[in-house]
Amino acid sequence: MKVDIRIGLVTISDRASRGEYVDRGGPAMLEHLRSHVGPSWTPVVRVIPDEQHIIEATLIEMCDGEGCCLVVTTGGTGPSARDVTPEATEAVADKMLPGFGELMRQVSLRAVPTAILSRQTAGIRGNSLIVNLPGKPSAIADCLDAILPAIPYCIDLIGGPHLDTISDITAFRPPEGGSSHLASGLAQEESSS
Amino acid sequence: MKVDIRIGLVTISDRASRGEYVDRGGPAMLEHLRSHVGPSWTPVVRVIPDEQHIIEATLIEMCDGEGCCLVVTTGGTGPSARDVTPEATEAVADKMLPGFGELMRQVSLRAVPTAILSRQTAGIRGNSLIVNLPGKPSAIADCLDAILPAIPYCIDLIGGPHLDTISDITAFRPPEGGSSHLASGLAQEESSS
Amino acid sequence: MKVDIRIGLVTISDRASRGEYVDRGGPAMLEHLRSHVGPSWTPVVRVIPDEQHIIEATLIEMCDGEGCCLVVTTGGTGPSARDVTPEATEAVADKMLPGFGELMRQVSLRAVPTAILSRQTAGIRGNSLIVNLPGKPSAIADCLDAILPAIPYCIDLIGGPHLDTISDITAFRPPEGGSSHLASGLAQEESSS
Repeated sequence: MKVDIRIGLVTISDRASRGEYVDRGGPAMLEHLRSHVGPSWTPVVRVIPDEQHIIEATLIEMCDGEGCCLVVTTGGTGPSARDVTPEATEAVADKMLPGFGELMRQVSLRAVPTAILSRQTAGIRGNSLIVNLPGKPSAIADCLDAILPAIPYCIDLIGGPHLDTISDITAFRPPEGGSSHLASGLAQEESSS
Repeated sequence: MKVDIRIGLVTISDRASRGEYVDRGGPAMLEHLRSHVGPSWTPVVRVIPDEQHIIEATLIEMCDGEGCCLVVTTGGTGPSARDVTPEATEAVADKMLPGFGELMRQVSLRAVPTAILSRQTAGIRGNSLIVNLPGKPSAIADCLDAILPAIPYCIDLIGGPHLDTISDITAFRPPEGGSSHLASGLAQEESSS
Repeated sequence: MKVDIRIGLVTISDRASRGEYVDRGGPAMLEHLRSHVGPSWTPVVRVIPDEQHIIEATLIEMCDGEGCCLVVTTGGTGPSARDVTPEATEAVADKMLPGFGELMRQVSLRAVPTAILSRQTAGIRGNSLIVNLPGKPSAIADCLDAILPAIPYCIDLIGGPHLDTISDITAFRPPEGGSSHLASGLAQEESSS
């Protein structure tokens, strides 16, 4: 029996949600994940405005209702008054993973000094990983390239389905495989450093 | 009609506020900003003790009362019991910008391993950006050099006046200029990475 | 009269606390600290399960009861549901030191891309510094090597005993010594950058 793997893609933009723009962030996330994440999975797509309660409700629906093991967002992570994606992510998450935002800002800093204005973060809700990606399509690719190697093992650890990476990106799992406990590490060999 | 641009400079130090020390952090911030930020602006200067409620009241006055688009602080970001500048900043901010602290610590780490003890951060209050700088004058310059390229665009995004950088530092704004939405990025070309 | 310096070592692992595993994280921390931190000190060791209230009570006992100037933990910092060490640390800390987690993730990223899944952090409680180390023994050494140079000065600043580093790691203290105020830096020369 095959597990139906579902990945949520949420574009957060007042203008895209009103149809004033063609959403380019959502398709950029979809294309990049299609090329780099396997086995086959079903995308669950939303385009919503920059309203915190709508973002929260959508993230909850994606995780709890749609059963997405991974939910990526684009938009709403800057310093503007309407940018509330990180606040919504934190509000619905059981725990935060600050390392994602740190690494994405570091990668984006190589391209633009304004990368420090991004408030991108990531968090766990139940068996789902939520990651805020940038709004800009080219920055989405850079950030996904940096974080994708860690995502399959993260989803193992939170009880999600077995994802893998394809193409030029390589998912990393500790030598002992999915049964080990990253943080306690007591079951792990010292082989990886 | 010219906009009166105001920048707040707050020295936070029990001893400087009692006159036991000559404040060197405040003048260091002033000199560095004078040399690197244009067009002409008016400094609003305060020297206050390490009391959280006084720091909070001063930051609020700088942002809401004095109309400073940028407020920089020096002092009070270490691990000591009296160091409460980050707590005060977070208490008055609408949203936090963790990328500033991350980058400033990275830059300071090149000079001293104790840079990880610094709890510097940054946040937005209304149309104002608040940034905690280190207490040490030489570290102030290093940190400002690293973050200044991102500050004018940040102030654009939060509805402040048009700042620019002068001298050897170059403000970065995305090609589409001040009207674009950093986070949604839906209006942006893929030209910058 | 000699001060009795005490350092707490807390292994946080359901399985180690039940005796299903031999605790390897605790001994790895002890061995590394023994080789790199002086003068002589007394270890205070605990092995406890991944229960937030037990972790909090243990950290409080280590800081307030046992008088440990430094408490290091291993385990419980990953994304799994049972990983709650950072939450417990934040709950008992007076102030957080985000620079420790940032640097430890950066160092661990050189070995494994899954380092971004670690939620390690550090905080101050009274006169004690609490630092979350990874669960994996080899990663413990890498992280301690990175942060140890900053720890003696941190403990000076929070009113703890005078620690020093031995062997190949060098504790860094600003030229003016323990009386200076890292954050205000008003007493400091500009000599270190």
